[in-house]
Amino acid sequence: MIVNSSQSLLLKETAEKTSQAARKLGGLSTGDRNQAIEAIATALENASADIIKANEIDCEIAEKEGISRPLYNRLKLGKTKLEATIKGVRDVINLSDPVGHISIHRELDEGLILKRLSCPLGVLGIIFEARPEALIQITSLAIKSGNGVILKGGKEALNSCKTLVKIIREALSKTKVSPDTVQLLTTREEIRNLLELDEYIDLIIPRGSNEFVRFIQQNTNIPVLGHADGICHLYVDKEAELDTAIAVAVDAKTQYPAACNAIETLLIHQDIAREFLPKIAQGLTSHEVQLKGDQLTQTYLDIEAATEEDWKTEYSDLILSIKVVDSLEAAINHINTYGSKHTDAIITEDKNSAEIFMNQVDAAGVYHNCSTRFADGFRYGFGAEVGISTQKMPPRGPVGLEGLVTYKYQVIGNGHIAATYAGENAKPFTHKDV
Amino acid sequence: MIVNSSQSLLLKETAEKTSQAARKLGGLSTGDRNQAIEAIATALENASADIIKANEIDCEIAEKEGISRPLYNRLKLGKTKLEATIKGVRDVINLSDPVGHISIHRELDEGLILKRLSCPLGVLGIIFEARPEALIQITSLAIKSGNGVILKGGKEALNSCKTLVKIIREALSKTKVSPDTVQLLTTREEIRNLLELDEYIDLIIPRGSNEFVRFIQQNTNIPVLGHADGICHLYVDKEAELDTAIAVAVDAKTQYPAACNAIETLLIHQDIAREFLPKIAQGLTSHEVQLKGDQLTQTYLDIEAATEEDWKTEYSDLILSIKVVDSLEAAINHINTYGSKHTDAIITEDKNSAEIFMNQVDAAGVYHNCSTRFADGFRYGFGAEVGISTQKMPPRGPVGLEGLVTYKYQVIGNGHIAATYAGENAKPFTHKDV
Repeated sequence: MIVNSSQSLLLKETAEKTSQAARKLGGLSTGDRNQAIEAIATALENASADIIKANEIDCEIAEKEGISRPLYNRLKLGKTKLEATIKGVRDVINLSDPVGHISIHRELDEGLILKRLSCPLGVLGIIFEARPEALIQITSLAIKSGNGVILKGGKEALNSCKTLVKIIREALSKTKVSPDTVQLLTTREEIRNLLELDEYIDLIIPRGSNEFVRFIQQNTNIPVLGHADGICHLYVDKEAELDTAIAVAVDAKTQYPAACNAIETLLIHQDIAREFLPKIAQGLTSHEVQLKGDQLTQTYLDIEAATEEDWKTEYSDLILSIKVVDSLEAAINHINTYGSKHTDAIITEDKNSAEIFMNQVDAAGVYHNCSTRFADGFRYGFGAEVGISTQKMPPRGPVGLEGLVTYKYQVIGNGHIAATYAGENAKPFTHKDV
Repeated sequence: MIVNSSQSLLLKETAEKTSQAARKLGGLSTGDRNQAIEAIATALENASADIIKANEIDCEIAEKEGISRPLYNRLKLGKTKLEATIKGVRDVINLSDPVGHISIHRELDEGLILKRLSCPLGVLGIIFEARPEALIQITSLAIKSGNGVILKGGKEALNSCKTLVKIIREALSKTKVSPDTVQLLTTREEIRNLLELDEYIDLIIPRGSNEFVRFIQQNTNIPVLGHADGICHLYVDKEAELDTAIAVAVDAKTQYPAACNAIETLLIHQDIAREFLPKIAQGLTSHEVQLKGDQLTQTYLDIEAATEEDWKTEYSDLILSIKVVDSLEAAINHINTYGSKHTDAIITEDKNSAEIFMNQVDAAGVYHNCSTRFADGFRYGFGAEVGISTQKMPPRGPVGLEGLVTYKYQVIGNGHIAATYAGENAKPFTHKDV
């Protein structure tokens, strides 16, 4: 890779500036941050015509270059979508403030007080698709959580993004939040440089294809919030209510097959395979789902063979692989081997089996008798979703605003020193929660 | 680097076995885990003579190879140290269980319940110094938190570690916890291989020199709990009580200079420099602290010059660099530029300045009118400390048992599907906290 070193230097300066602006932002009150968000909403309203015009240019160019219909629809920011997005900005004002929550408040000794409280991460690096309204949503969530943000949108949305950031920065300049809090990158090369700025960027949130997210995860030391794969499973236990199993399987596969929380593999206990397989096959094929099965499944259904590769595949489409397993344990092992630690469900009337499944399946979401499609920040009641993480450490699963903050410890004394609590006449700590 | 591929394959198998054993462990009750820890304590007691003999061999070899006195003292596991360590194992039994804490409990809709609860991480990779009792402490904390553990101790402690792990595994074989939960690596080459096993290892905790921790951080995709540097600052504000400032500075520098929470740099507001510097210099030099100062400091004190390099140095010794700053803001900027995000303190009677300092200094610990030496899991009342983390994302700062767990979401329904809550006649969620 050829690094454009002058560009990389420029980006470093930008990141440093953002980091300094973010530090100031982090010290502002909830009211000041909300006021800045309201200023953005108003400015976007006032400049609607300009925004739509800038977006039309993007759309025109993209059409000439033969953009696909779904991508075009994402790129297009008409009046209705823009209005809904601006309403969304105002909704962020009403979300509870994630900054300043006290999770530990403890007297260590008389007059020596420990507090652990949530605080902004610092600077977020967000790389998103050619979807202009994403820029608006992300920026308002960043300011709400007290973070600076460096944005890079898909190249097809370049005009829209430039216009939006210009309007947002102008709006901020009349508030207590520095315009330097929000920055836009415009070239693909800058992404590489961004990934190296672990000194200034505290979290990268990549949105886009699995391959893209994986690339980001493997090429930076900065923590990454996101998931490369969503290989979710539904296991139908021998004690399953079959009608429930069919309804859930159909929902989890067909309600929105491109979603990361849709299932890719159905595991079925052998004791019910003969009865269940024809029924579920009918349910799924009537929704145009193409089925693939392991050898045992193929003895009951006349379908294509599922190979080793299928167990590792996120189809994101109306395709489902089916495997017959001889035990709950075998189902758990299959999931822990091939799953992506996203969301996996069991259908059973046996509470004990459900408990073992939920304990031993290693995933952000473990479900019992319901669809994996509930794995979503809005459905969980978080008010906003900044992403779904399949890493092991928190934040894990659907991540709301609290994924954009960390915490720090404050200790306040009046001259307390450690020597008092050490050695032969060591004073004991009181360790009383306040 | 030449990778010994057969060894690497073997290690992968070991890691997989540990991972499977850990999964079972994660499902055990608090009582079962505590019973296993008690079994370890008893077994260690019964085998004390063997342990001490094995350790004596290590000590003999190390002496022949000319080990330094401090390292020898760490390596040596006499009767008293072993007894204290076994007592420590039993203390772990009394710590509250970090597994199964419910942090969200919410009705999404009638009969559809969301819970977020803490669960073990999986497998810990712990690389520690030639200090046999560390192995015992770590193992009991791992089992308490439901995690498998792959251990690699300093080579000088090889015999001791082998003997300890043999005893621990034998003890576990009579409990519900599989002996495969605890594994020992014996060669340095295995560390490299371990760092690549992100499929099986969920957290690496390296203990040792700053260089070593930095090497680990830079050579793995597995999350690392630890800190490479502890460059802590004390800022004496113009509104400081000077006696408090002197007492805290002396404590923070001299009470245990090798500790990561000792200060390395003293920042002093220019308005009090003339009065304060001679006093603090006297206080510190009477404790044999060698002082270095920036140009302004040198106009008041006849000491060596502090260079750019000094601001970046963790002396871990009785050396302190001093800088005169012209404002609170300059102090904050210095700390955010040169600090290691560990622990930084302000001495001031001005609450407003203290608040700005604690808000804007980007560190795991921000202190007001007390010594940085309080940054410690035991002093915070965590009962145990698994490390101090200077990364931005949680766990941050001193980390107790809760740093060894993560969380998962459970959703339990009775056939609930997402389609019910989508489209034109979408049913609203209730989102009622239980």
